[in-house]
Amino acid sequence: MKITFRNIALAIVLTTGFAAATPALANTTHTGPAAPVVSSNITEADVIAAQRAWGNALVSIATDFEKGGFKLAKATAEKVIDSAYGYAMGPVLFKPTLTTAPQTFRTTREGALAYFVGGDKNYPSDTGFALKGWRSAEIRNVAIQLHGDVAISQGNVMLTDKAGKTTTVDKTWGYKRDDQGRLLIVLHHSSLPVKP
Amino acid sequence: MKITFRNIALAIVLTTGFAAATPALANTTHTGPAAPVVSSNITEADVIAAQRAWGNALVSIATDFEKGGFKLAKATAEKVIDSAYGYAMGPVLFKPTLTTAPQTFRTTREGALAYFVGGDKNYPSDTGFALKGWRSAEIRNVAIQLHGDVAISQGNVMLTDKAGKTTTVDKTWGYKRDDQGRLLIVLHHSSLPVKP
Amino acid sequence: MKITFRNIALAIVLTTGFAAATPALANTTHTGPAAPVVSSNITEADVIAAQRAWGNALVSIATDFEKGGFKLAKATAEKVIDSAYGYAMGPVLFKPTLTTAPQTFRTTREGALAYFVGGDKNYPSDTGFALKGWRSAEIRNVAIQLHGDVAISQGNVMLTDKAGKTTTVDKTWGYKRDDQGRLLIVLHHSSLPVKP
Amino acid sequence: MKITFRNIALAIVLTTGFAAATPALANTTHTGPAAPVVSSNITEADVIAAQRAWGNALVSIATDFEKGGFKLAKATAEKVIDSAYGYAMGPVLFKPTLTTAPQTFRTTREGALAYFVGGDKNYPSDTGFALKGWRSAEIRNVAIQLHGDVAISQGNVMLTDKAGKTTTVDKTWGYKRDDQGRLLIVLHHSSLPVKP
Repeated sequence: MKITFRNIALAIVLTTGFAAATPALANTTHTGPAAPVVSSNITEADVIAAQRAWGNALVSIATDFEKGGFKLAKATAEKVIDSAYGYAMGPVLFKPTLTTAPQTFRTTREGALAYFVGGDKNYPSDTGFALKGWRSAEIRNVAIQLHGDVAISQGNVMLTDKAGKTTTVDKTWGYKRDDQGRLLIVLHHSSLPVKP
Repeated sequence: MKITFRNIALAIVLTTGFAAATPALANTTHTGPAAPVVSSNITEADVIAAQRAWGNALVSIATDFEKGGFKLAKATAEKVIDSAYGYAMGPVLFKPTLTTAPQTFRTTREGALAYFVGGDKNYPSDTGFALKGWRSAEIRNVAIQLHGDVAISQGNVMLTDKAGKTTTVDKTWGYKRDDQGRLLIVLHHSSLPVKP
Repeated sequence: MKITFRNIALAIVLTTGFAAATPALANTTHTGPAAPVVSSNITEADVIAAQRAWGNALVSIATDFEKGGFKLAKATAEKVIDSAYGYAMGPVLFKPTLTTAPQTFRTTREGALAYFVGGDKNYPSDTGFALKGWRSAEIRNVAIQLHGDVAISQGNVMLTDKAGKTTTVDKTWGYKRDDQGRLLIVLHHSSLPVKP
Repeated sequence: MKITFRNIALAIVLTTGFAAATPALANTTHTGPAAPVVSSNITEADVIAAQRAWGNALVSIATDFEKGGFKLAKATAEKVIDSAYGYAMGPVLFKPTLTTAPQTFRTTREGALAYFVGGDKNYPSDTGFALKGWRSAEIRNVAIQLHGDVAISQGNVMLTDKAGKTTTVDKTWGYKRDDQGRLLIVLHHSSLPVKP
């Protein structure tokens, strides 16, 4: 039987501090207008939305490549990277699915762009992962951790191309919320499953 | 007109990363069982519950004093401090309402206990704030900030005693969630309003 | 004897995870260039620097008032508020030393500016706290808590004016680092000591 | 030329808030004893120490297996898991190097133990990764991110066995500090490099 821990946060509330010492009292009331609440905490819904957006963005680069060629695909990829990855905050921990040594890790924006669309002579092995005809993405998380304005997820992502071929990867993503409220990917480790 | 910012967190979600780049696509799906979610993030409801518990705890010390004298009040106060304040995590930033120099700040458990029930020769000015016949507490927050497993609130607290007399204080509380999931007070600054 | 906990963070490192299980082994080495480190964590030095800057800013408003009158003082105060307080992030939890009900709490930039320099008909009780001839500030923290990109301090602040008169307040500050790396005050509770 | 961002945190301090507004003033002093500082922030040194401990722990399981067989290796692995992984906090995001579907992810303690030492009929594909004669570990981080009491690192780990054969993996680790001050692994994604 699979146990779902979705209610861990809720359960935690029930054990809040003083409860044990004051079970029968209810002499405290809150009055006045609802106080404004400021929060940069990431929620489960935020993570799900950001993952959905990532999948849609990959498909949009692939279809833009077919519609408008390399130039349009590259422009779209740049928009995606700037709105979805946290390179403006510093090095991103990015291990793409297919990169090889000595350029395995793409901690810079340039390295990420080269991986997604290729065409960069400084990254001669890159052929453009996002250009491979992707049409849909399916995501199965095995667990999500929420740490304030940082969150981490792990699971499988299944990408299907226009020929109907599906590629499955093992995926870890880490997000951080910026001052504008956006969730940005600051960690991305993707790997092909080991063959049994 | 008073604007309520209660929905700031929600609004933030709508601006999440990739949305702008991929308005028309919906090619990503989530499948499989709901992933367990681990979170130590504090919510507005957690803060409200912890505040209510604080008020109830104060009343419980006062009524236990009347029922069982100093000994029972002290035992109750110790339970309250250990379950509601984070002294086990290190110095607590506690400026009680009525303390005076050179013992204004009570960063230790001993100092907090002396403030609440008095009777400690090392704190000769303390007469036991929690013993003053409290019957109810009313809380009006002006704003709440959620910072991951830390939260801060500010506002007024009105305490009413058995004679019906109400004392109003300006109050700041800071909470931190511990590994057991409890919200513990790590900051408490209370002050009497300035007389106009 | 006063015990200083300044080395708590250091002590914590020594108890790091695996140590107990592997006392005698040293078979792991780190090689390659030093990895870049991205951090928004607030340090003790950050807090001290921000406190010093706050004191200096208060003196600068006072001296600018004497040099250039209300207009210059107000311009300086606006710069101070925008560079030192986190109003751009949402409501700030600000309970100034001398405010009275119903305008005790200044969760907006306007309320903070009115408090510091007065001259705002919407805050008729405000006479301009920062205009009162301040010449120096002395700060004595009783404890500092570092919570990632949020930090809280508590202690006394002694402000001395040009006549040599010193005003002591009980002070709590909370800081948050923004995406530009600045420490901004998101919490400020100041109160006059209770008279014994 | 390789630029090292090791000093990002330091640089950030220099841009702290008020500095711009008050360049020439130095009228604020800190007096009194050094205030105790409470912090659960993770440092670069913490991450390096935890990585070293992980490598040493792997070697200790391997050598204990040779000295004392499966029983001793399992006991050591249990100690390692309990002191180094955060399973007590909830599901750990663990994608080991060699696991295969449908047991790729090991979010439970049982799954981690099976991976390290095998011998669990519920994980029939596991042969005991930690038993493979490991003698040393070499770690090359490409970047480290510090997010309060959470930290993430990425890079290569090279494991060498008693025959002198080296296995290289692409590695992401996430750590969280618990209330006892220990850094515990809450994220671990390991993958074999793609063959060019």
